[in-house]
Amino acid sequence: MSGQQTRQWILANPPKANPVLEGDNATFKLEQKTLPALGSNQVLVKVLYLSNDPAQRGWIQDGVDPKRLYTEPVLKGDVMCAYGVCEVVESTADSIKKGQLVLATTGWTEYAVLNASECRPVQPDEKAGIRPTHFIGALGGTGLTAYYGLVDIAGAKPEDTVVVSGAAGATGSMVVQIAKHLVGCKKVIGIAGGEKKCKWVESLGADICIDYKASDFESQLKAATEGFVEVYFDNVGGEILDLMLTRMKRHGRIAACGAISSYNAPGEVGIKNWFEVIANRINIKGFILTDAIVAGKTGEMISKLVQGVKEGKIQLGPEVETVVPTKFEDVPKTWMVLFEGGNQGKLVTALKQ
Amino acid sequence: MSGQQTRQWILANPPKANPVLEGDNATFKLEQKTLPALGSNQVLVKVLYLSNDPAQRGWIQDGVDPKRLYTEPVLKGDVMCAYGVCEVVESTADSIKKGQLVLATTGWTEYAVLNASECRPVQPDEKAGIRPTHFIGALGGTGLTAYYGLVDIAGAKPEDTVVVSGAAGATGSMVVQIAKHLVGCKKVIGIAGGEKKCKWVESLGADICIDYKASDFESQLKAATEGFVEVYFDNVGGEILDLMLTRMKRHGRIAACGAISSYNAPGEVGIKNWFEVIANRINIKGFILTDAIVAGKTGEMISKLVQGVKEGKIQLGPEVETVVPTKFEDVPKTWMVLFEGGNQGKLVTALKQ
Repeated sequence: MSGQQTRQWILANPPKANPVLEGDNATFKLEQKTLPALGSNQVLVKVLYLSNDPAQRGWIQDGVDPKRLYTEPVLKGDVMCAYGVCEVVESTADSIKKGQLVLATTGWTEYAVLNASECRPVQPDEKAGIRPTHFIGALGGTGLTAYYGLVDIAGAKPEDTVVVSGAAGATGSMVVQIAKHLVGCKKVIGIAGGEKKCKWVESLGADICIDYKASDFESQLKAATEGFVEVYFDNVGGEILDLMLTRMKRHGRIAACGAISSYNAPGEVGIKNWFEVIANRINIKGFILTDAIVAGKTGEMISKLVQGVKEGKIQLGPEVETVVPTKFEDVPKTWMVLFEGGNQGKLVTALKQ
Repeated sequence: MSGQQTRQWILANPPKANPVLEGDNATFKLEQKTLPALGSNQVLVKVLYLSNDPAQRGWIQDGVDPKRLYTEPVLKGDVMCAYGVCEVVESTADSIKKGQLVLATTGWTEYAVLNASECRPVQPDEKAGIRPTHFIGALGGTGLTAYYGLVDIAGAKPEDTVVVSGAAGATGSMVVQIAKHLVGCKKVIGIAGGEKKCKWVESLGADICIDYKASDFESQLKAATEGFVEVYFDNVGGEILDLMLTRMKRHGRIAACGAISSYNAPGEVGIKNWFEVIANRINIKGFILTDAIVAGKTGEMISKLVQGVKEGKIQLGPEVETVVPTKFEDVPKTWMVLFEGGNQGKLVTALKQ
């Protein structure tokens, strides 16, 4: 078989601020393409699930210096980049059979032709509650980012109190669980948007989760962090980061994982409390999972996460992900939910077949 | 002898923004006081030189939570805190004789009664070019802060390119010299205000020093940091820190020593480039010399600095300090020169006797 037809979402107009879904200036455009025939050691895959990650916003930023990105940027005219869980529908590789599920960087496409070496076969385990989507979430880059940032970068230990922002998000909800149930941190404080999300974060193991939309958020956070905290896992940047600078213990550690509050808002973030970094000897470390992958650390981390699942310490119930059944023409719309705070746990696009 | 009369500068109105020298709301007020008679193991000292440090601004900030300061704050009604080099004029301690020069936390006073244990005897060495003022500067807290921040905190190594802001200031000018002549860093780039200061920083060993007041400062800095830099020693915070986030090499290290740009400017500092911390895995460490003192590291550092002076690697010429002969009633006025960028090297108040 050759010449598989597919639709793809192309980056049409790299955005400076909010991505735009419609009009002449739309960020993405839908195209039809005929894929090439398979070469040797290649596979044709059908995308079942797409991963939605705040980091994707950085890859398409207009005018960014590619030297300052941690990955190849998506250029105008490229297929929008994304991780996907796919089914192999044709293979010329001995290592991968038709019907196998694989994880790969597919981009926003219905079908893709990939080198077998670019695909990682994955094996859901219904009995253990491990579903295909978990390989782009709790047991994929998301869970690994949470583990690496909390344990390796921030060096969280049982005696530490930990604050996690974006605690109801994909990474944050894993940080909460790892901190409380794997590391066994003394106290875990989540920050999330809205009462429902906060309740959920508490059900995952946070001692308390504070609603940043509440009018008395600041005083609630101060009360919860009385005595100050050793570790802050920052998913949001901006005002909450600024406030957390005043809540860190002397020599406190901040793992800077994301800054979703500013991804679509060009311009400045006002920092009032920078002097706290000096006066209280705060150590801030930015990090990217890639470094752990390159250092060969992720295998052991995955084992610990899987063991945590099997021991009932890490919840993989349906509530750890927001799976949105999506027609291919609505892929960008589902992705945008990330920036509206609309997801609980991992936001997954399930392509309607 | 007892009942020595002295004048003292008292903190009258802790400032929120710029300290004010005159009027009902003046930050400091001059008072006359009679000192107590000496107890056992005490000394009466006459202050010769006062150290002027940007950090002093933090100690008097209005409304600051004392728990967030790294030292006891100066409270309303207290003598303004400062380090001084003094002559002992009377002593009941065996360890300290009349006529000895000592370093102590005297505050803004003409005379003080101190416990002998609070005084560190110092020995100028004219032949080696070591003057009394150096014990509050290049061979005191200033030089130690430079050494500790550059070597211990930022981990500067010979293969590193280092940027130093406030490079013509007390600490910055020592960082430049230590980086170039003791560590032997590959390239040392200073940032200072005005052509004259920049020339001086280059004379200390900087490969280049860039004038932040120049209209093309940003493009000059970009050119000087082509290929990006491993280490940034930050004395100023604010806009220059924000710009430097875009000039750090992957896994670059920032030693956060000061933020003089914001000490008198309450409110927010706009940070546009926070995402660089994440994407380029920047490690930012705030630090305070106190930690090195407590850890017993400063003796070895002082030896290295003194050896550097003797080997001609560290310049202690008159240009490494701005010594301002000052009548006691003008002590606050001289201190304010710090915030106007008026000093080159260490700003020292020499009390007119």
